[in-house]
Amino acid sequence: MNRNKLVIVGVGHVGSAVLNCALAFQLASEIVLIDTDGDKAVGEALDTSHGTSFAYYSPNIDVRAGGYEECRDADVIIIAAGPSIMPGENPDRLVLADRNVKTIREVMSSIVRYTQEAVIIIITNPLDVISYCAQNFFGYPKEKILGTGTTLETARLRRILANHYGVDPKDVQGYMLGEHGNSAFPAWSLVSVAGIAYDKLDAYFQPAKPLNTAAVGRQVVQVAYDVLSFKGCTNSGIAVVACRIARAVLANEGSIFPVSTTLEGEYGLSRVSLSLPCQIGAGGVKRRLAVPLTAEETEKLRHSAASISQVLRNTGLLS
Amino acid sequence: MNRNKLVIVGVGHVGSAVLNCALAFQLASEIVLIDTDGDKAVGEALDTSHGTSFAYYSPNIDVRAGGYEECRDADVIIIAAGPSIMPGENPDRLVLADRNVKTIREVMSSIVRYTQEAVIIIITNPLDVISYCAQNFFGYPKEKILGTGTTLETARLRRILANHYGVDPKDVQGYMLGEHGNSAFPAWSLVSVAGIAYDKLDAYFQPAKPLNTAAVGRQVVQVAYDVLSFKGCTNSGIAVVACRIARAVLANEGSIFPVSTTLEGEYGLSRVSLSLPCQIGAGGVKRRLAVPLTAEETEKLRHSAASISQVLRNTGLLS
Amino acid sequence: MNRNKLVIVGVGHVGSAVLNCALAFQLASEIVLIDTDGDKAVGEALDTSHGTSFAYYSPNIDVRAGGYEECRDADVIIIAAGPSIMPGENPDRLVLADRNVKTIREVMSSIVRYTQEAVIIIITNPLDVISYCAQNFFGYPKEKILGTGTTLETARLRRILANHYGVDPKDVQGYMLGEHGNSAFPAWSLVSVAGIAYDKLDAYFQPAKPLNTAAVGRQVVQVAYDVLSFKGCTNSGIAVVACRIARAVLANEGSIFPVSTTLEGEYGLSRVSLSLPCQIGAGGVKRRLAVPLTAEETEKLRHSAASISQVLRNTGLLS
Amino acid sequence: MNRNKLVIVGVGHVGSAVLNCALAFQLASEIVLIDTDGDKAVGEALDTSHGTSFAYYSPNIDVRAGGYEECRDADVIIIAAGPSIMPGENPDRLVLADRNVKTIREVMSSIVRYTQEAVIIIITNPLDVISYCAQNFFGYPKEKILGTGTTLETARLRRILANHYGVDPKDVQGYMLGEHGNSAFPAWSLVSVAGIAYDKLDAYFQPAKPLNTAAVGRQVVQVAYDVLSFKGCTNSGIAVVACRIARAVLANEGSIFPVSTTLEGEYGLSRVSLSLPCQIGAGGVKRRLAVPLTAEETEKLRHSAASISQVLRNTGLLS
Repeated sequence: MNRNKLVIVGVGHVGSAVLNCALAFQLASEIVLIDTDGDKAVGEALDTSHGTSFAYYSPNIDVRAGGYEECRDADVIIIAAGPSIMPGENPDRLVLADRNVKTIREVMSSIVRYTQEAVIIIITNPLDVISYCAQNFFGYPKEKILGTGTTLETARLRRILANHYGVDPKDVQGYMLGEHGNSAFPAWSLVSVAGIAYDKLDAYFQPAKPLNTAAVGRQVVQVAYDVLSFKGCTNSGIAVVACRIARAVLANEGSIFPVSTTLEGEYGLSRVSLSLPCQIGAGGVKRRLAVPLTAEETEKLRHSAASISQVLRNTGLLS
Repeated sequence: MNRNKLVIVGVGHVGSAVLNCALAFQLASEIVLIDTDGDKAVGEALDTSHGTSFAYYSPNIDVRAGGYEECRDADVIIIAAGPSIMPGENPDRLVLADRNVKTIREVMSSIVRYTQEAVIIIITNPLDVISYCAQNFFGYPKEKILGTGTTLETARLRRILANHYGVDPKDVQGYMLGEHGNSAFPAWSLVSVAGIAYDKLDAYFQPAKPLNTAAVGRQVVQVAYDVLSFKGCTNSGIAVVACRIARAVLANEGSIFPVSTTLEGEYGLSRVSLSLPCQIGAGGVKRRLAVPLTAEETEKLRHSAASISQVLRNTGLLS
Repeated sequence: MNRNKLVIVGVGHVGSAVLNCALAFQLASEIVLIDTDGDKAVGEALDTSHGTSFAYYSPNIDVRAGGYEECRDADVIIIAAGPSIMPGENPDRLVLADRNVKTIREVMSSIVRYTQEAVIIIITNPLDVISYCAQNFFGYPKEKILGTGTTLETARLRRILANHYGVDPKDVQGYMLGEHGNSAFPAWSLVSVAGIAYDKLDAYFQPAKPLNTAAVGRQVVQVAYDVLSFKGCTNSGIAVVACRIARAVLANEGSIFPVSTTLEGEYGLSRVSLSLPCQIGAGGVKRRLAVPLTAEETEKLRHSAASISQVLRNTGLLS
Repeated sequence: MNRNKLVIVGVGHVGSAVLNCALAFQLASEIVLIDTDGDKAVGEALDTSHGTSFAYYSPNIDVRAGGYEECRDADVIIIAAGPSIMPGENPDRLVLADRNVKTIREVMSSIVRYTQEAVIIIITNPLDVISYCAQNFFGYPKEKILGTGTTLETARLRRILANHYGVDPKDVQGYMLGEHGNSAFPAWSLVSVAGIAYDKLDAYFQPAKPLNTAAVGRQVVQVAYDVLSFKGCTNSGIAVVACRIARAVLANEGSIFPVSTTLEGEYGLSRVSLSLPCQIGAGGVKRRLAVPLTAEETEKLRHSAASISQVLRNTGLLS
């Protein structure tokens, strides 16, 4: 019997949002929550389970707290464990590295005792460092581990451009690439709306102000800190991102998202994880797309890679 | 043009969960967030808006922070304002009364400056006291104000019985009635599964342990505190409840939920708000059902009413 | 890898409606259509596949025509094969028996060559005869074969009562039982709205006309012929029924529907298939509920059983 | 009170599919069916209404047959009236013109007696001719009338390219433009997947066979006839298209679809209706996008326009 089973590791602000979103997406018929604070997992499971009593939100699924042995027959594992940046802290995701590398080591060591089958979706920050660690040190099939990466920044880019031009963000094409964090950048040469390239959009949509590409790039990165300082955490957007990717896995959709994988020579880069557009299906990452970039964009990608590599070295993950 | 417009007043733990659930339910094409902490409202709106960039969760809706003037053309207003009980506090909802009566006075005074059209759904605790205040002191049409009431306890009762008997909670009939809080009680005479009355369920479903009605009644009330102490707040379940009721309003469904209204002689009770099964449609409460209760259940209802009335007097809402 | 896989056998008016509904329910990531008219299956698959290009309706699922070998790893098989009653024909479902017993023999013989794992949902009429045949002559696990039975009549009963009382049909409890067809009857003793028994509903809801139970019973049966003569077939309602039941299987919900199974002594009946409320989960029928019936209702059930048995004998399925 | 209200004119194969899809999309709380065969409308309304009794598909909406006076407060009117091409007939949509111009005259004359507020979505073929007629001869605000146009061909193009490259059609950008019918053409210069232009896709996705753009263009047009001859009608795909566009109206999404409007000088064309990418929102067509086309594509668009103009002249709509 093959009901979809989802495991969420870590049910803080982010994991809790992922849980609620997973019910709304009707992703799975079994959801198990693992948290070092077992009470927290029980509380989240209880609270969410009450929502299954009424029509429209969720089927009668089984939501419960559990241990890593529940990973044995999981289809997807979403890892949202580890402390986040708090408002007022130095807001660079990379400062979290030491703490969360330790976290991911514990989590991955526990998972591999039970499975190498599930597709693992990582949210824990600094995303690319944690993804690199998970992908390269536990013998788990690499294509089955992906970080949500710049899919969140991409959602933000599309929303910001949608607001600027008065269009539906689902009609905005294009990606943020590189690091999930400060060095992420918009690959403008890939951006279009209705097939109209980014540099012609002003002519077609006549926005109140002309497009300032540099400002938009900064705004996409900055809005993470805005959300963080305004509401105290960021969780709603990332939860939709994680569940959208999980659905692509569970339905074997082959959809394309910029997720964080370990590069293997693309753009001359390797031994680093960062986000490029990837096709996601039942087995995880089906294909990594080294999309055509301009020289300037390639340079930004390398800069992003260098930032991440620096942290990989600092944390001892790269010698 | 009549797009659905939802206003959420108060975006703390509960209001934020309502917001995210409203997107998942695709309740409205416009959602406006009002909070005394304007930054919080902006942060929640921003974070949620990013989720509209991808398929499956939400159409391209307009989520934004705003002021009470946004109520002018709202279809539904959900009020989740006011401090909650915190873990470790005296966990009786009634201690919140003084603080939140002040809150609801401010909120209602602001709303009535702009509309008497929207259906208002109240979540703020102590629910029945706050609902009574909103329904009786601002000249707003009474049938358009309802408290979520024991709809949440009802969801919990159904989930608990579903777990006990291994059935789908959507197949469990029956209601918790009375106060949203400690004196809520299951109206066992209305409980059935597949038309099988509560006292015959053990024979049909042969659960591991026989049904202990008193224990289940206590468990439904207790689980609120379990969730509170385990996860630090209760928000997932109540968010689904509020959005389910809002959908009944927006689609004019006439669905029945035990919501808190001011009684007008039912069971000899008046000048008090508490939960009875009510039909909910486009205009709010279409009909209050004084369902047949046993003498014991009627006594419990009166006890619940007395508890609420005591607080109404203590807060000066009832002389 | 365990994506949900649905096979639909027979894509005439009914099978085609089931297919479209399955996409809307997002039931499966793979749907295979089998039809003796291969072109028809290809046409339906093609037409439906075009709907996967846009947001909101269906993920990027794989819909295709295929052969019985596709049943090998199916999770659910819905059988809608065989000719229906046409408007103007003698409108008793039982006249179809000879033709469709032959059909189900071919279909089941083909399926058992590849699987005994999938849950099989039968729609082909005369439903109870065809279900009996499938359940008893092919060595397939009995609990994994169920006919949609009076779940459709139950939907109609709830809709008719909902219209009569101005309530939401999702709040109407109660079932049509017995034969899917002319001898189906409402088990009034199980009917309630908000815990109010059927004979008190007039007092609570004050409908324009009092409830005429005999007339409603007839209307539920008659509306099938009304739909048939008015639109030329009945397919929309039954498609929702089949997909709702399939979801209960795929998500292991344990939901209760009156489906057609072979009785094993309930109410003194055996060697006949008809509809009683049953719990449906991952393995098919988890439990058959011999719900408490009045003497009059039990008599109607026996009458229904006798009608079906007569056809079973006439078709040589019962000696 | 402003519940969403949808009117469907014509409930043959296509209108019936639109109806069922509208429930699945949960588009409206009221749906009224108008058909010259009143019984057909009643039958469809009855059959569909039964599906509202169970969870997951549709709220308790009001589906009923009615007359044109129901358009008075409609938000969206979808016109699927008029005979279709039957398998075996000369399969050019334009032969239908004389018959269906008469139909649309009757329909529009009836609608304008009651409203100029609703957004009207036309499906009736030959689509561009019928759209032109509706947009130009009844004094109805032009921006509120749009034909589904090449949105269906666009869905087919994306599905075909998705199959060719093994990607999700929701990741395929690009449009079929021009006539809804034989002279529709893919605007290849606007086609991309993940920002990769059409002429580089083979290099990135390495399909079994190289892309043959001419063959794909023909296949998109041909598949309409394949579906028609294989299943006897085309209705599933077009139903999703119409409901997707209706949702963009009802939620004021501003989404872009290639719909049929009367041109006003774009590419030197006027006095003809055909499909260009348009933004669709609450008021209908917000903006028509004369997207950048190559000389060859512009030539094809003019050829398409000439085909349509010829029929407009033949039917006396253009002098």
